[in-house]
Amino acid sequence: MHHNAGRKQIDVVLAAVKKMGLTAQPIPGSDRTAIGVLGNKGYVDDINIRNMPGIKEIIHVTKPYKMVSRDFHPKGTLVQVKGITIGEGKNPIVIAGPCAVESEAQIMKTAQAVKRLGADLLRGGAFKPRTGPHTFQGLKEDGLEMLAEAGRRTGLPIVTEVMSPENVNLVAAYADVLQVGARNMQNFDLLRELGKIRKPVLLKRGMSATIEEFLAAAEYIYAEGNHQIMLCERGIRTFEPATRNSLDLSVIPVINELSHLPVIVDPSHATGKRSLVPPMTKAALIAGANGIMVEVHPEPDKALSDGPQTLTIPGFGKLMEEIRALRSFMGY
Amino acid sequence: MHHNAGRKQIDVVLAAVKKMGLTAQPIPGSDRTAIGVLGNKGYVDDINIRNMPGIKEIIHVTKPYKMVSRDFHPKGTLVQVKGITIGEGKNPIVIAGPCAVESEAQIMKTAQAVKRLGADLLRGGAFKPRTGPHTFQGLKEDGLEMLAEAGRRTGLPIVTEVMSPENVNLVAAYADVLQVGARNMQNFDLLRELGKIRKPVLLKRGMSATIEEFLAAAEYIYAEGNHQIMLCERGIRTFEPATRNSLDLSVIPVINELSHLPVIVDPSHATGKRSLVPPMTKAALIAGANGIMVEVHPEPDKALSDGPQTLTIPGFGKLMEEIRALRSFMGY
Amino acid sequence: MHHNAGRKQIDVVLAAVKKMGLTAQPIPGSDRTAIGVLGNKGYVDDINIRNMPGIKEIIHVTKPYKMVSRDFHPKGTLVQVKGITIGEGKNPIVIAGPCAVESEAQIMKTAQAVKRLGADLLRGGAFKPRTGPHTFQGLKEDGLEMLAEAGRRTGLPIVTEVMSPENVNLVAAYADVLQVGARNMQNFDLLRELGKIRKPVLLKRGMSATIEEFLAAAEYIYAEGNHQIMLCERGIRTFEPATRNSLDLSVIPVINELSHLPVIVDPSHATGKRSLVPPMTKAALIAGANGIMVEVHPEPDKALSDGPQTLTIPGFGKLMEEIRALRSFMGY
Amino acid sequence: MHHNAGRKQIDVVLAAVKKMGLTAQPIPGSDRTAIGVLGNKGYVDDINIRNMPGIKEIIHVTKPYKMVSRDFHPKGTLVQVKGITIGEGKNPIVIAGPCAVESEAQIMKTAQAVKRLGADLLRGGAFKPRTGPHTFQGLKEDGLEMLAEAGRRTGLPIVTEVMSPENVNLVAAYADVLQVGARNMQNFDLLRELGKIRKPVLLKRGMSATIEEFLAAAEYIYAEGNHQIMLCERGIRTFEPATRNSLDLSVIPVINELSHLPVIVDPSHATGKRSLVPPMTKAALIAGANGIMVEVHPEPDKALSDGPQTLTIPGFGKLMEEIRALRSFMGY
Repeated sequence: MHHNAGRKQIDVVLAAVKKMGLTAQPIPGSDRTAIGVLGNKGYVDDINIRNMPGIKEIIHVTKPYKMVSRDFHPKGTLVQVKGITIGEGKNPIVIAGPCAVESEAQIMKTAQAVKRLGADLLRGGAFKPRTGPHTFQGLKEDGLEMLAEAGRRTGLPIVTEVMSPENVNLVAAYADVLQVGARNMQNFDLLRELGKIRKPVLLKRGMSATIEEFLAAAEYIYAEGNHQIMLCERGIRTFEPATRNSLDLSVIPVINELSHLPVIVDPSHATGKRSLVPPMTKAALIAGANGIMVEVHPEPDKALSDGPQTLTIPGFGKLMEEIRALRSFMGY
Repeated sequence: MHHNAGRKQIDVVLAAVKKMGLTAQPIPGSDRTAIGVLGNKGYVDDINIRNMPGIKEIIHVTKPYKMVSRDFHPKGTLVQVKGITIGEGKNPIVIAGPCAVESEAQIMKTAQAVKRLGADLLRGGAFKPRTGPHTFQGLKEDGLEMLAEAGRRTGLPIVTEVMSPENVNLVAAYADVLQVGARNMQNFDLLRELGKIRKPVLLKRGMSATIEEFLAAAEYIYAEGNHQIMLCERGIRTFEPATRNSLDLSVIPVINELSHLPVIVDPSHATGKRSLVPPMTKAALIAGANGIMVEVHPEPDKALSDGPQTLTIPGFGKLMEEIRALRSFMGY
Repeated sequence: MHHNAGRKQIDVVLAAVKKMGLTAQPIPGSDRTAIGVLGNKGYVDDINIRNMPGIKEIIHVTKPYKMVSRDFHPKGTLVQVKGITIGEGKNPIVIAGPCAVESEAQIMKTAQAVKRLGADLLRGGAFKPRTGPHTFQGLKEDGLEMLAEAGRRTGLPIVTEVMSPENVNLVAAYADVLQVGARNMQNFDLLRELGKIRKPVLLKRGMSATIEEFLAAAEYIYAEGNHQIMLCERGIRTFEPATRNSLDLSVIPVINELSHLPVIVDPSHATGKRSLVPPMTKAALIAGANGIMVEVHPEPDKALSDGPQTLTIPGFGKLMEEIRALRSFMGY
Repeated sequence: MHHNAGRKQIDVVLAAVKKMGLTAQPIPGSDRTAIGVLGNKGYVDDINIRNMPGIKEIIHVTKPYKMVSRDFHPKGTLVQVKGITIGEGKNPIVIAGPCAVESEAQIMKTAQAVKRLGADLLRGGAFKPRTGPHTFQGLKEDGLEMLAEAGRRTGLPIVTEVMSPENVNLVAAYADVLQVGARNMQNFDLLRELGKIRKPVLLKRGMSATIEEFLAAAEYIYAEGNHQIMLCERGIRTFEPATRNSLDLSVIPVINELSHLPVIVDPSHATGKRSLVPPMTKAALIAGANGIMVEVHPEPDKALSDGPQTLTIPGFGKLMEEIRALRSFMGY
């Protein structure tokens, strides 16, 4: 709508869109109000509305997302997790913890160490998506309890994965941030269910998802009403065997141009190799990531999953020193 | 076990494996019995069993699948759908129908046409996984009913997609074959749920899934007890923009060597272009596919999804003639 | 130009284009004459010619090729090699031989066997592009001589690779068809040099070349005046490790729509595995390939390169029987 | 050889290797001498040497490179260009200039600007590899002269591409560093020719080259005697269309572990978009790149090639400020 379109003109357009059998969602900005038109099956003829007073421009959206785009919401979304603010202009956060919760002792020891060394959030998997059915699949609800207890004792908010729509409420009862894994980025029923809760979601990029598909997946959550979404780059699948995946750091500035959602980088899954985590962490931060997520384990070589890419506690301590110096260089 | 290992020796080994906290599954073959050891978290020391009488060889399986492999089950699995037998040595089947069920008239018209022209099964999507939330998402249960009615009237068994574990029973109440889409190939909760029903599953390859991951996904279904699984190649994601995906026909002989499960090829999604469907269909059949699945619509240019890759009814008729000639050339 | 544009109108346009500092190449067709405008650095303003009489349409070509496209030359190019005609509507040919010429005995034995079994051309590498410098690099000119001698004795035309512009004349002195390997598809100086000779060129697709880049590479040869070009699909590089490359058979109908040049398929390099060669050969032929190229060696397991993907002589004999049956099914 | 193996023992082994028809190259280190065995066609039986005194270990190298690996040369190679030292522990360099030399005025203006703003070397293409033959192919020798003159006047060493073995000497007569483009990474005759000169080579990674193939290509140059090689990451080809290529920064630490050669990063070609160059430049530097190469043009929108990814002069000035701050943060 024009910047000087009034309430009445907006209402007339909203009503006209409804009459076309579509949903009209007003998106008020600082200067002007945009109206998102949703629910169309394919292309919609705009003949009924195109000459209405107050309309500045009708953009036929060909991209599969709009609410998560900068066009509709120029200001960066800030995600709030128990007093921590994540996003544009904020000190980039550090999420640390083991790939999987394996035992009370393991997760508590890790939690206390990463808290002491300066992590902002604690991660740990209770439901583990694994390539084959014959390997460790996570401690499930027991794991959630251990993780939550470690969070309570250390004061660290916790991040953990949810794999299935029917477990969203269960996981949300324990977790401060719910993670969607790469394999589930296009599990649309799961995304819709996460749109209905009021806890932040960390959405990982699918292993061969384009940035457009990544943002469209976030749109599923956003469209249901949950706007607290963080996007997580974790490497894409390419022909290169030297790293587990190919970390695509260009994603950070590209998404910053296209979307208002914060970007977190996971250099552990991306590289698959401990020694590559520190340089890629620093690269992610200076390229503008709003946070990083790294795997830490007291004894990586005994970890039930992802050992080779997991930092030791002293290794994480050393990395935190580098992160602190870099944050300060960047003015945080 | 040795080919001459008796029942008693087998039982002793089974008990020993159980005592190790693992699951032992005897897999009797024509010559000898294999024992699948499941439930291990990572590598298992075999010291307790390695010298037991009757044991021929202990293979530490590094592959994430075993039950779906030829090693454990050399004979090809035959999938039964309402009197049609699909698999090794059988006449390759043709699954045809629209991408999505759009209306009673559309699906009935298509069903009657493809039946008349010689299709073996009818496909049609009721739950549609779409990249973004603002496009047509399928008619859901209404669509299932229309599809089932079209199946009843024509006598064609029906294939339709299920996207979520909680809908498995609903979809199974209507469908003869349940399809898992490419985006859900690693939706492990969905796979497990499909393992519990007793209807055939058509599992599509993920868009960047390796063949190993593809077979491991099938293993999730198989391990739960449902052995009626067909694998569907539908193109992989590559750098090439000329086709929607890159159809990987080598998969057919590769899977035939590695696994006993039938392979179906979907040239419509693979190529994304109508004119490429006939040559790729014929290529798939002569390379050994156990069936093909093509999209057909009375008016492709008005289809709510995937129009450009969908055959017209006359186009499908022409293709069926070519398929019949080729089947006869191949000795069916 | 309009179908009724006369010689004079055409000449006026040709002169005007020349005056703009560009090259104008008339391309007479059955109905009308097209004028290819070459030599422009980027976009060219057409203000000086757009209203000239006789001009029907000015197409600003954004594709990096035009002379090899169907638009400019609707009829399929037929390549002539010593009395054999390759291309649209012709019996698809079989090129067979070892990856590398290793000795007089090896190439002669192979040549005689493949001739007897029905091959149309003999292949064999004398200049071998190898990933690293410390492996067998081919017998070079000695290899060319052995290959040519084997060709003479059996009457088979020979195909061999040229790697460098300065060797084009040397190789052309021996070979009937000059092959450009995948790694050299964009070795533009080599392509230009091959454009100046008058022997057919077999251009292999680069391992990550798009079809557009593939055709643009052929355009380099074509533009220099050598129009006898065959395009060879040999698999593309993807994330899938089960095959050496991923054979992209959709290329056959895609190129048939875009270009008039014949397409040959190399299932040996594409798959990297002997057992996959026969099914992929048949798939290529039925999808419309104008020929196939397979590796054959008397003792593949002792081959200095590419042994695992090379057929034995009896294996090739069996494949030829299948090819003959298929050719006859296809009406040749 | 053992750390205490003497000159005589080494000589005996060298002679024995020679007698086997192979080349033996002693590679003296600080502790012990390694002997590289070259020239073998495939696997070599070591029966004749394995028990010789002084031999510690025989490693059958399966990798296609050895001389460029850290195993054989643990200390980082330092490349010298007219008084500038590039490599491990040295201030990372900045190479700047236009994609192509277009005119005397353009290259001189750019050279003076980048010199004033702090660039270390000047780049500019005179021989341009282009996808199709009908676009600007560079000013060739005229371009070399203009570039050299700009280098002389500003005192900046110059980097320019060579595309063909027969032009190596011509280009070497003008350039301080000879660049091999991505498309020519496996143009082995060109690499061998570059191995014979005594000027540094900047070898760009092929667009779908694995790191192993990249190092093997460098090995071609190194094995001929030219050890002054820099490796340049410029993005790899993936399915993602949002950037021209996918910049693979993990390459920096991976190559630092595998090889002693310096790594340069080209964020201009990698991203294809001006706004992405500054964040990716900084990410490359902090991840350990030994230098970066960026495209700068006085009027990028009029550039004959690569305009969209090219920095303006003020844009480059701003980037240099950020680079200076970052260098100083990193202790240079």
